Amino acid sequence: MPVIVQKYGGSSVADTEKIKRVAEKIVNTYKNGNKVVVVVSAMGKSTDNLINLAKQVHDSPPTREMDLLLSTGEIVSVALLCMAIEKLGYEAEGLPGFLAGIRTDSTHTKARIRAIDTRRILEELKKGKIVVIAGFQGISMEENITTLGRGGSDLTAIAIAGALKADICEIYTDVPGVFTADPNIVPDARIIPVISYQEMLEMASTGAKVMQSRAVEFAQKYHIPFVVKSTFIDSGGTMVTEVDFKEGAVVSSVTLDEKQAKITFFNVPDKPGIAARIFGALGEASINVDVIVQNVSTSGYTDLSFTVNISDLEKAFEISKTIGAELGCKSVTSDNDIAKITVIGLGMMNHPGVAARMFKALAESNINIEMISTSEIKISCIVRKQDGQKALKAVHKEFIK
Amino acid sequence: MPVIVQKYGGSSVADTEKIKRVAEKIVNTYKNGNKVVVVVSAMGKSTDNLINLAKQVHDSPPTREMDLLLSTGEIVSVALLCMAIEKLGYEAEGLPGFLAGIRTDSTHTKARIRAIDTRRILEELKKGKIVVIAGFQGISMEENITTLGRGGSDLTAIAIAGALKADICEIYTDVPGVFTADPNIVPDARIIPVISYQEMLEMASTGAKVMQSRAVEFAQKYHIPFVVKSTFIDSGGTMVTEVDFKEGAVVSSVTLDEKQAKITFFNVPDKPGIAARIFGALGEASINVDVIVQNVSTSGYTDLSFTVNISDLEKAFEISKTIGAELGCKSVTSDNDIAKITVIGLGMMNHPGVAARMFKALAESNINIEMISTSEIKISCIVRKQDGQKALKAVHKEFIK
Repeated sequence: MPVIVQKYGGSSVADTEKIKRVAEKIVNTYKNGNKVVVVVSAMGKSTDNLINLAKQVHDSPPTREMDLLLSTGEIVSVALLCMAIEKLGYEAEGLPGFLAGIRTDSTHTKARIRAIDTRRILEELKKGKIVVIAGFQGISMEENITTLGRGGSDLTAIAIAGALKADICEIYTDVPGVFTADPNIVPDARIIPVISYQEMLEMASTGAKVMQSRAVEFAQKYHIPFVVKSTFIDSGGTMVTEVDFKEGAVVSSVTLDEKQAKITFFNVPDKPGIAARIFGALGEASINVDVIVQNVSTSGYTDLSFTVNISDLEKAFEISKTIGAELGCKSVTSDNDIAKITVIGLGMMNHPGVAARMFKALAESNINIEMISTSEIKISCIVRKQDGQKALKAVHKEFIK
Repeated sequence: MPVIVQKYGGSSVADTEKIKRVAEKIVNTYKNGNKVVVVVSAMGKSTDNLINLAKQVHDSPPTREMDLLLSTGEIVSVALLCMAIEKLGYEAEGLPGFLAGIRTDSTHTKARIRAIDTRRILEELKKGKIVVIAGFQGISMEENITTLGRGGSDLTAIAIAGALKADICEIYTDVPGVFTADPNIVPDARIIPVISYQEMLEMASTGAKVMQSRAVEFAQKYHIPFVVKSTFIDSGGTMVTEVDFKEGAVVSSVTLDEKQAKITFFNVPDKPGIAARIFGALGEASINVDVIVQNVSTSGYTDLSFTVNISDLEKAFEISKTIGAELGCKSVTSDNDIAKITVIGLGMMNHPGVAARMFKALAESNINIEMISTSEIKISCIVRKQDGQKALKAVHKEFIK
């Protein structure tokens, strides 16, 4: 009998009416002759409410107790979902993370899964029960409750699917799949039926927040295919799996990230150690740097630009100005009026000329490219912010038929 | 170093401000050189809120899932209380019931504590931590989360105090102790400094709801003394312990129960099996019968009266009318206009004449006694409801100086 792991996020179980609808979906899957294991998140805003309570007693709540507190949110969903399933006449077994055998390390609030002891899950499946497991949580070797951090429930589902060697892992969310571009901007955008782990990871890092990177990395590492689909809208969704780069789409998706800002050092002395000095200081301040471009040196000086997330701009600019003065730069400027447009495709490795087509599409729309960055399976261009959506449409039209 | 177990009820941790005040009390106890183990209930109305959610998905929620759901309420309190303690600069270890080693049977929603594995608690105390444990919950031998039913957190505290051989168990609540009578009715009522387990049990069953009987029975069985006192008002409270009946107060308290109703069978045939027939049927319907009085038989017929809780009256009266007809009684009547007044005192065993003094006090207040019931350490009289409070005052004045 096939084993199916289904994960339902917080918006899918935001209230008791939705919980009942999710229960019906689960029961239908079971009635179709599958063994069903469900992983569920906390109801809608319940995690935020718990965090608010914590902040009222401690401005910087200790992480161990924070985990204990937050873990209750998913347990509430588990209990209610089991009740809804039993109301439909089917047997369900609800398990908090520690009873489901999710063993983690001790890094509270962002623990890593170390092992999954599947005995209890298998035992309940054998009895013919639908097993419902609290996502996002586990127990450490020291017997403390831990949580897995953002995207933790996806990770739980994928790890359980891997441990059970499930036939399929379904990640139910509020979108019907992974789109070739944001459908709110590009009406022609369509759902990608199959995509590789690498492409999903690039998408996550370029502004398309379907899933957190950690869950996708875990799936890639352990070769666990999964499907992203909508809870309440019927669709085939997007299968995320291993794809041979020879068979991959040349461009599978185009993303737009409008939350980027640029810092430029003018007339930096072109000598060893300068980049290390700048990016070392930013790294120490936990600022993620994205695109970095350095011009060809002329007469011993160069210009250096990089982008950061707009929320880090203020801190990054302060640090940069200090270092710029130390280095004797002519000036350091910041610019938050930019957008990043990225094409992603496994087939790019095999098809030269993608960059040229992208640049041409942008040029034909009269869009100026300010910075360029490439990797094996993606090309990113920084453009003016007001050109971002036009650029997305133009590039999508060029590549996605 | 003395070990103190403290239990804080839902009203003591109803909001984050109260949680902070409770944390201060706990830290003060710790600073005074004690090892401190705290048992805590769910915040104020949170259990009711969870029950409401459950009812929205299942009209009669399965008990196993209900336990899983309700157990989260106490865990939230534990986490927040630990945060508040750590905010004050002291180390706390928060433990859900299953991590605190509370093993129960599998009777979901009213599980019985089977064993307490104190290893984890002792380990954390040894590290100098304040240990905070979720009341009301445990884990069954089949590894399911269980809850202990009403008064469960008191039971948790008393059982832990017993297992740790604690020096004292303090039950913090919203009253400053056990009173000689309800102070809202009898302004002269005062706190009883020491009372026996038996007297506490009689009080619980006669309308004074300081604590559920189960926790007191457990304390009595395992010889665990405890103190009932107020969280936010300083008072010595009431020590509940073993008291030699020779040393016990003749009358320690007087209670008034206005939630009683009476059913009377007139002209019942006075032959064997009649009482069994009536009370057997009521027992099958889970109706608790309190005072039973049967008159002396005249010419083969007798009158039989008994009291039930007013909430059971309708059902009890229906059953009684049916049986009354079967038995050929003259009539069956019901009366919910009564009250029960009870004097309780361990010393009664040793001091005859208490009943006479009680009847005299009532007579002097022109209060008619309708039914009388006695046990070794209590005497109950049924009076008209409108005489109830006057009766309480008169009897309290007679016995409590």
